[in-house]
Amino acid sequence: MNAFPQIDADQAAGELAAIYDDIYATLRVPWVAFAIRVMALFPAYVPAAWAALKPQISTRFAEAAADLVRQASILPGPPPPDPRPKLRAAGWTDEQIRRLGRTLDALNYGNPKYLILITAWNEAWHERHAGGPEQVLSATDAEPLPYGLPAGVDKFNLLDPATASPEVQGLLRRARNLFLHHGPASDYRVLAAWPDYLSIAIEDDLAPVALTPQYDATSYRIRAIAREHVARFPGIGGVSRHDMEETLTPVESAGLTGLLFMYNRFIADITIAIIRLKQAFDGTESATQNKFAT
Amino acid sequence: MNAFPQIDADQAAGELAAIYDDIYATLRVPWVAFAIRVMALFPAYVPAAWAALKPQISTRFAEAAADLVRQASILPGPPPPDPRPKLRAAGWTDEQIRRLGRTLDALNYGNPKYLILITAWNEAWHERHAGGPEQVLSATDAEPLPYGLPAGVDKFNLLDPATASPEVQGLLRRARNLFLHHGPASDYRVLAAWPDYLSIAIEDDLAPVALTPQYDATSYRIRAIAREHVARFPGIGGVSRHDMEETLTPVESAGLTGLLFMYNRFIADITIAIIRLKQAFDGTESATQNKFAT
Repeated sequence: MNAFPQIDADQAAGELAAIYDDIYATLRVPWVAFAIRVMALFPAYVPAAWAALKPQISTRFAEAAADLVRQASILPGPPPPDPRPKLRAAGWTDEQIRRLGRTLDALNYGNPKYLILITAWNEAWHERHAGGPEQVLSATDAEPLPYGLPAGVDKFNLLDPATASPEVQGLLRRARNLFLHHGPASDYRVLAAWPDYLSIAIEDDLAPVALTPQYDATSYRIRAIAREHVARFPGIGGVSRHDMEETLTPVESAGLTGLLFMYNRFIADITIAIIRLKQAFDGTESATQNKFAT
Repeated sequence: MNAFPQIDADQAAGELAAIYDDIYATLRVPWVAFAIRVMALFPAYVPAAWAALKPQISTRFAEAAADLVRQASILPGPPPPDPRPKLRAAGWTDEQIRRLGRTLDALNYGNPKYLILITAWNEAWHERHAGGPEQVLSATDAEPLPYGLPAGVDKFNLLDPATASPEVQGLLRRARNLFLHHGPASDYRVLAAWPDYLSIAIEDDLAPVALTPQYDATSYRIRAIAREHVARFPGIGGVSRHDMEETLTPVESAGLTGLLFMYNRFIADITIAIIRLKQAFDGTESATQNKFAT
């Protein structure tokens, strides 16, 4: 499995490492999104875009927008089957199941926030509606969230696909191809710590719904919610292609345009997928809840 | 309006100019797609991908696949209003209307073919299903189309947005933003020769349907048709990221991945849009017909 070009968290140094740390603490999520790790290859973009977005996405307003995305991410139809009987038959303890559940909670806390982030970056890139000083938030909405990972949440360990077992590589490839994606989402690199569960999740929860019109319509809906909310940011939540014209080569500028578009869809897909994995365990209400509200 | 980075037809030289000429003649379409002009910035990609695709896309099988895409590109609901009364009121002659109609026909002949092209390139890039020697076409399907533009069809003149009037720039920007696109499609740069018509097309035909769930579902459908057909090509219709690993830098490789994904959606959007413009004049049957069948 040839790795997709990116700067993983353990390879980031200097300014980029500091930005990655600031992203963890500001968003309160235990990983840096695939999109960011790839766009970090492009000179100056991530630092500039993050500097513009940070004051916007650290607010309670942005948190509430992510909550609405999460609530709208349930696919129509019955939930997938409860995976617990298969896990118990494979020898899983209640404690192991509880730990997996907390991992899914953290992923489901973060993915909707990353959809807000990529939407703001993409809209700002095209000088569309990614907020502006004419937008005014209420005092409560403008309040910043606490800074730092939630209590009891540790940074995720993302498995390196290149050094994974053939079995795990097969699972990552299967998850990627099911959705016509270009590489394994961070989420699958986290869940790959439990290959037996990842296999159940892919086959029972995701394969039956991947690439269906219902999946596509749900992605369409949550991307619209994200756009509506970033348009209300009290400052522009990113930088434009025009802003970066003197910094980036034509190839870099065109490439970033494609990546921003692609990750806007990719993150929507993965948001829906991982909420569905949680829905299989604990139902719709739990799957769509903000488990780290402050 | 700052131009999107690309190599326009009149800027192409050497090997690239020869490839552009080969694309016109092989596909029998009077313009080189925006996607290709942008990806031509990336070293070696377009020559390699075109060399792989040409034997596949020059067949009657590929032409028939594009015909199916065209037929599936009609949005549900009534057709848009006939623009002729407004055009006649603005002084248009029957001859002018006829010439516009032929331009729409050529665009509608080409867009579905470019959806086949970008789908093959995108699927091949990810080593998914873009054909292979195990696929066998019937003798008729394997036949090549005649080489060269259809009789009476001349290469399009794409207006340069940078030198357009403020009015035309406004129309191009409006068409672009309606669909959350990154730049004006070639089609609008062609239709910009008639700003009064382009304005009617945008407001009466496209604005009411842009970004609706129905539009999204139609795009979803035609992209699936394109994928099903490129999977049946008798050879792989593109090159993979892996194939190009030693030629491209990580930034180029990541950027191309994003562009291939983005143009797969972009070309689907524009295919639907321009067929709808023709539907307004001449109804569904005419709008979905292959007007240059041989």
